[in-house]
Amino acid sequence: MVQYIEKLSKEEVLNRIKKLADEIYNDFSSGNPSIKLAVRGNIKNIEYDEKRDIITLKEKIGSREFFNLGHVRRFMQTLLVASLAKKLVEKDKTASLREVYYQLKHTIPILNVNTIEEQEESDAVIEDLERAIKAIREQFHIKAEGRGAIYGDIYLRDKKRGDEWNCSKLGRGGWSIPSTIEDIEIGDVNADFVLVVEKEAMFDRLIEERFPEKQGAILITSKGQPPRGVRRLIHRLRKEKNLPVYVFTDGDPWGFYIYSVIKRGSMNLSQFSELLATPDVKFIGMTIDDIDEYDLRKKGAVIKLNQRDIKRINEIANYPWFKKSKDWQRQFRKMLDYGIKVEQDALAANSLEFVADTYLPDKLEHPEKILS
Amino acid sequence: MVQYIEKLSKEEVLNRIKKLADEIYNDFSSGNPSIKLAVRGNIKNIEYDEKRDIITLKEKIGSREFFNLGHVRRFMQTLLVASLAKKLVEKDKTASLREVYYQLKHTIPILNVNTIEEQEESDAVIEDLERAIKAIREQFHIKAEGRGAIYGDIYLRDKKRGDEWNCSKLGRGGWSIPSTIEDIEIGDVNADFVLVVEKEAMFDRLIEERFPEKQGAILITSKGQPPRGVRRLIHRLRKEKNLPVYVFTDGDPWGFYIYSVIKRGSMNLSQFSELLATPDVKFIGMTIDDIDEYDLRKKGAVIKLNQRDIKRINEIANYPWFKKSKDWQRQFRKMLDYGIKVEQDALAANSLEFVADTYLPDKLEHPEKILS
Repeated sequence: MVQYIEKLSKEEVLNRIKKLADEIYNDFSSGNPSIKLAVRGNIKNIEYDEKRDIITLKEKIGSREFFNLGHVRRFMQTLLVASLAKKLVEKDKTASLREVYYQLKHTIPILNVNTIEEQEESDAVIEDLERAIKAIREQFHIKAEGRGAIYGDIYLRDKKRGDEWNCSKLGRGGWSIPSTIEDIEIGDVNADFVLVVEKEAMFDRLIEERFPEKQGAILITSKGQPPRGVRRLIHRLRKEKNLPVYVFTDGDPWGFYIYSVIKRGSMNLSQFSELLATPDVKFIGMTIDDIDEYDLRKKGAVIKLNQRDIKRINEIANYPWFKKSKDWQRQFRKMLDYGIKVEQDALAANSLEFVADTYLPDKLEHPEKILS
Repeated sequence: MVQYIEKLSKEEVLNRIKKLADEIYNDFSSGNPSIKLAVRGNIKNIEYDEKRDIITLKEKIGSREFFNLGHVRRFMQTLLVASLAKKLVEKDKTASLREVYYQLKHTIPILNVNTIEEQEESDAVIEDLERAIKAIREQFHIKAEGRGAIYGDIYLRDKKRGDEWNCSKLGRGGWSIPSTIEDIEIGDVNADFVLVVEKEAMFDRLIEERFPEKQGAILITSKGQPPRGVRRLIHRLRKEKNLPVYVFTDGDPWGFYIYSVIKRGSMNLSQFSELLATPDVKFIGMTIDDIDEYDLRKKGAVIKLNQRDIKRINEIANYPWFKKSKDWQRQFRKMLDYGIKVEQDALAANSLEFVADTYLPDKLEHPEKILS
């Protein structure tokens, strides 16, 4: 079976789509046309690959069958998406999920039925195609929305346009990371590590403090749960440039899960962990230990847990990759014991400069305070 | 009384804060210390300045009094924020709303009361300070979150850092517009107009189609209701470079209101319209007429109005600035008659290139199709 690979040439993507079409076409002679694809990820059919420390999808293959009333609509839609993907790759165009929806939606004459009703339908079928031909949708030129930003002494190049720029020479805005970065080449990097920051405001703070220059860091903001373009960029920075990557989030279950997704992939995209996850990223904070260490409770800089937080803590504490770690279990327990969480912005309770001049340098000098 | 002005020097901002403090200090001898400030904007106390075509705040002055149990907490908080603002400007630092919250929050000894409980409190007080010294918070170095992006043949310069870059030489990502652009200088622009696009995906589409190069456009994405940095940049591009500005949104009440906010300012920030609004922007689409003209209904590329849409249409149709316009009333009526709205992405129902090669050029060539 075809495999996910980092760089899929245009020809290879087209071959995979064509192979899918050929298989279906041949199936017609056997009387049972079907599309084979890995079953979608959820907590039940994902696997936690402990050795590689990423989430993967169980090798459970499902199929959409043409002669099955429950499947035929999805079957037809998959062919529509595959056909559009082929055109996109051939024409070297990129379409958003919403554009794909509008491009494929039409009313079938005589039957008077719409090919697609809601965008959720086309989104799901795009994911089917990803699993059927083992390519991420960026590789067949379909992209989601969502931008991050990157700042630091790194050259990037847009292969198609030939532009090259240094991400530390764009003022404090940095470069806006689009939702697909498949055409971006990573050039020279003059930095010792990558720091992924959950919040935009913290990204701005660190730039203002000249943290990247002082510490030799490339900064990336994930803006909460990172868009796919950001995840791909982190993955590629680690893989192509061999830079250590630290993740800096809020000290709450949502922040911890952002770290987990960057590191090990997410459940519903578990089939792509190899292209999106970065197993050896490390967690630089906030931890619940920080609350004590930096006296944040007395300063009123912590937030009480609500019911939703507590539920989520118990949930993620039970994910196998968090469960096996004594360090993480300690954090979860302590968060529940204290009944509080802490935001990365809370470090401003000390001073605005504190995070850049004290907190992060202190962690970097004491690797034992860094979780993994 | 002090006035809002475009460029406030560091000294001028500090003077205004000091003047406020002096006034309060002197009030103590008269026995009634108070802070005077314009009453906050809502539909009742804003004014629609028809001649200038912007929303302004009625000249209704309120005050927060020290010897008033209902006011004293807010009074104290305003002094805290003013004091922090002074430090920020002196130290040339910028703080986010969340950082301000954490910086000012502490427990008052003996009383055992927190200076600030929730961020909503400090946010509101920051707006008080804006109205008390007539400066936007960006001018005293406090900023919200929210980034847009800009692409096109325009040089920007970060005054503080000395970096200069061309926003068409950064690949397809463009430049990430931070939430405050007070230190950004606008250099040479080689373009005929500015196009503000509601959705990120449409911004990407137009870049992919090389619309900016072909049509001489600067593209900005507002990402829905534009962050303040984006509104300031549009305002300054119009003012400093005298470029015509077109706004391109969905054809629904939310899109129409995005246009309105860019053009005339928003109600709750009506006191700053002169710095944030751009009265002579024009609306290039989507209109309800487009549905007929481009046959979008037959293609199934329209969406039924829901109750919330209908309520919102009736609401904004009654705002004085929309009410006076026959053209806009026609759009609202037609939307209600048809019972449908239309997204900008819907143009993809024709082809991906359609928006760049046909729709926008057609509108630009037929100014009578452009609303204002």
